[in-house]
Amino acid sequence: MGVVEELERIFHPRGLAIVGASNKPGNLGAFFLGGFIQQGFDKDKIYVVHPTENEVGGIKAYPTAQDIPGDVDLAVVFSPRRSVPQVVRDCTLKGIKGVVICTSGFAENSADGAKLQREMVATARSGGTRLIGPNCVGIYCPSSNLVNFAGMMPRESGPVGMFSHSGSLSVMFPVAAAAKGIHFSKAISCGNSCDLNESDFMEYFGQDPETEIVVAYMEGVHDGRRFFQLARDISKRKPIIVWKCGDSDVGSRAAASHTGALAGSPQVWDAAFRQSGMIRAESADDVLDLLQAFYYLPLPRGNRVAIVSGMGGMGVAIADNCMEYGLEVAELTEVTKKRLDQFVPEVGTCPDNPVDLGMGSAFNRQLYIDTAEALGRDENVDTIIMTTGSWQPNYVNQVMQAMKGVEKPIVFVTTQGLRIMMEEPRPVKGVAIYDDGRRAVRAIAKMVQYRRYRSGQQV
Amino acid sequence: MGVVEELERIFHPRGLAIVGASNKPGNLGAFFLGGFIQQGFDKDKIYVVHPTENEVGGIKAYPTAQDIPGDVDLAVVFSPRRSVPQVVRDCTLKGIKGVVICTSGFAENSADGAKLQREMVATARSGGTRLIGPNCVGIYCPSSNLVNFAGMMPRESGPVGMFSHSGSLSVMFPVAAAAKGIHFSKAISCGNSCDLNESDFMEYFGQDPETEIVVAYMEGVHDGRRFFQLARDISKRKPIIVWKCGDSDVGSRAAASHTGALAGSPQVWDAAFRQSGMIRAESADDVLDLLQAFYYLPLPRGNRVAIVSGMGGMGVAIADNCMEYGLEVAELTEVTKKRLDQFVPEVGTCPDNPVDLGMGSAFNRQLYIDTAEALGRDENVDTIIMTTGSWQPNYVNQVMQAMKGVEKPIVFVTTQGLRIMMEEPRPVKGVAIYDDGRRAVRAIAKMVQYRRYRSGQQV
Repeated sequence: MGVVEELERIFHPRGLAIVGASNKPGNLGAFFLGGFIQQGFDKDKIYVVHPTENEVGGIKAYPTAQDIPGDVDLAVVFSPRRSVPQVVRDCTLKGIKGVVICTSGFAENSADGAKLQREMVATARSGGTRLIGPNCVGIYCPSSNLVNFAGMMPRESGPVGMFSHSGSLSVMFPVAAAAKGIHFSKAISCGNSCDLNESDFMEYFGQDPETEIVVAYMEGVHDGRRFFQLARDISKRKPIIVWKCGDSDVGSRAAASHTGALAGSPQVWDAAFRQSGMIRAESADDVLDLLQAFYYLPLPRGNRVAIVSGMGGMGVAIADNCMEYGLEVAELTEVTKKRLDQFVPEVGTCPDNPVDLGMGSAFNRQLYIDTAEALGRDENVDTIIMTTGSWQPNYVNQVMQAMKGVEKPIVFVTTQGLRIMMEEPRPVKGVAIYDDGRRAVRAIAKMVQYRRYRSGQQV
Repeated sequence: MGVVEELERIFHPRGLAIVGASNKPGNLGAFFLGGFIQQGFDKDKIYVVHPTENEVGGIKAYPTAQDIPGDVDLAVVFSPRRSVPQVVRDCTLKGIKGVVICTSGFAENSADGAKLQREMVATARSGGTRLIGPNCVGIYCPSSNLVNFAGMMPRESGPVGMFSHSGSLSVMFPVAAAAKGIHFSKAISCGNSCDLNESDFMEYFGQDPETEIVVAYMEGVHDGRRFFQLARDISKRKPIIVWKCGDSDVGSRAAASHTGALAGSPQVWDAAFRQSGMIRAESADDVLDLLQAFYYLPLPRGNRVAIVSGMGGMGVAIADNCMEYGLEVAELTEVTKKRLDQFVPEVGTCPDNPVDLGMGSAFNRQLYIDTAEALGRDENVDTIIMTTGSWQPNYVNQVMQAMKGVEKPIVFVTTQGLRIMMEEPRPVKGVAIYDDGRRAVRAIAKMVQYRRYRSGQQV
């Protein structure tokens, strides 16, 4: 069985063992157990394993994994670290496909911990069991009701697959993205990656039909050659957004103590990003910005941007941002210019790109609709960026509605100030929404770059 | 009378004329008139000027400014552009100190418009009247109930003075900042700056006791020598945050059509920023981020940062960001390390900088409080950046409360995901809050740079 099939079984387990859950107040295993039940995992297929408890949270407990009567494909382990090697042994003897070890204190912590870790891996390999972690927060898969953290994960499934060298970020991103209507197929907290690692997860997402966009937070890579080869191939079909950290001296030291990872030199990573088509995120905000772009927008056909503003200042700023990020401010066709001349007011405005609709546009949303339609038809325009100059309720939604036929990325920049005045607009297919013009331009520039990679052009 | 005294009179007018307000539906003057009344400007001291109306919005109208019986120090003009030179003549003859011309269609628009503009300036100068605009949205001064846009401006006054080459941004920033508890003393929309310009406003804010922080959106400068000299001096007492746009070819063309400004070369501006102590903002978000830092935080004594995370990944990322922006990850004293060792859990954590409190910290806010106290006392630490690893209600506020004695900047990075889970925390004196680690680091780095300028060190 290849790793893809193995992971598929792990993500859709016939039975689930929570090892180390107890009735002690604050016990993390019991917290997760409650999370799985809350998420909708079938109670009859959950088993608790604990040396002394008889029942935890209404679920019968067994002394070891081997004592469980039913079929189990996934165990999630919270036992104290000294007992984890024995837990892995029992799980392997039971024939459990995947063991997710949440317990910390292994290779990231001490030489002694590293020894325990090696022992676990040897045991698991001898019986065909695969390990995720240790030192992780588990795996999330809403379509099969698996959670990585109780009480906060969205139940809706979507096309984003994530693996992460930070457990908390594998929780944080699905939660934050859900607020923008973007959902995840799976999120994997890699932890120390003692057995399954980022390359395995990348290979899995490459083939997973539930996953169309891959997102990763990475602090290093275990098998660079395999990983970058996979990234090169998968990028041709699915965008891969990577936030790589641990580049600085202190950052790489922190990464080592965090997950025991070797960060790798920044130069190697720069080259890898250039050659593999992976899309580099520069911060947590940037991950969410890129996710929004790749989820909601069609890929722009080229780098020519039309800018529309009611606030002239924002138009000027976005034109600057386009230069900064290698986008072109489109030269509008004569037909478009004539159309704009017909309805754009004569003063306090500019009927050429960046199109400034002037202060009057605050009272006249039709101006935005007509402008967007004119630019949508202009063959010289690949992407339309509009800054909102109105604070009329529901205004952005109406303009978005009017632009539904346009097969080009449309981006609204709402600005924090105006958002306060309006109902918070939400992105829809074809239209993304950003707080800040520079962030919008950066996301579009990365889409243009990615499209070039996919179409085999020099990046 | 110097320009500072003139502007002081304009900002605190004995009477106010709204010129060009009418009963026509959608009339902008009537909209502004309603705004002034709503903002609390004394109705008995407002006069409408209109050639044919008798009354607008419950306020008596006079055919010309000269017909107004009471004292008037400020006129705000919405008349059609052809009639504006005559309006200026009437206002000058009436002895009005300041005329704010909102009407567009002058130097930014055409040669004909430029001629009208020159005519107005000559008239005003002959009688000692000063002009703001044309092509602007007016002036905002909550302490004297002046508004630049009806129905949305905060009534509370605060220490931020702004001038802006974008009218909409002079509206947007006070609204957005108010949501973070930051208020403005004044905001000025410069428009075409035919008479009073950015140097005059800078000089005014330098002396205005209501203004402690200056913010500007600029597309160019009329008298660079005077402006940069003023900036150099004022920076020593008040931070000046400048978002300069119009650097790109297209951006500068857009700026010319926006306010008729000459953008100036990027090289000149780079040098000006380096030499004048002005703090460069790079986007709308950045303006708000810097404003939050300078408003809420004491200036850091140096560039050494302590990082605290419950989410290890965020700690790694912020360490990288410190390198990127020239900050140092502080070497903690032995005393601090020993204190941390006493209460930081043994596994899944790191008791050195960046301090990783591990997953357990999600359930234990006391860990954050104790850590913050230990770092607050460490003489090697100038700034503390904490990423929140808990989603307990009111958690950030409790930690902030516990740190009230610490005289160092404390910055929380909440992340969009966790914010959804919590009550939205709000900044307080001494503590700023950002969504994103990189943005937090950038703001602190600019504070460090500014402090160096102020203390006469090489930047």
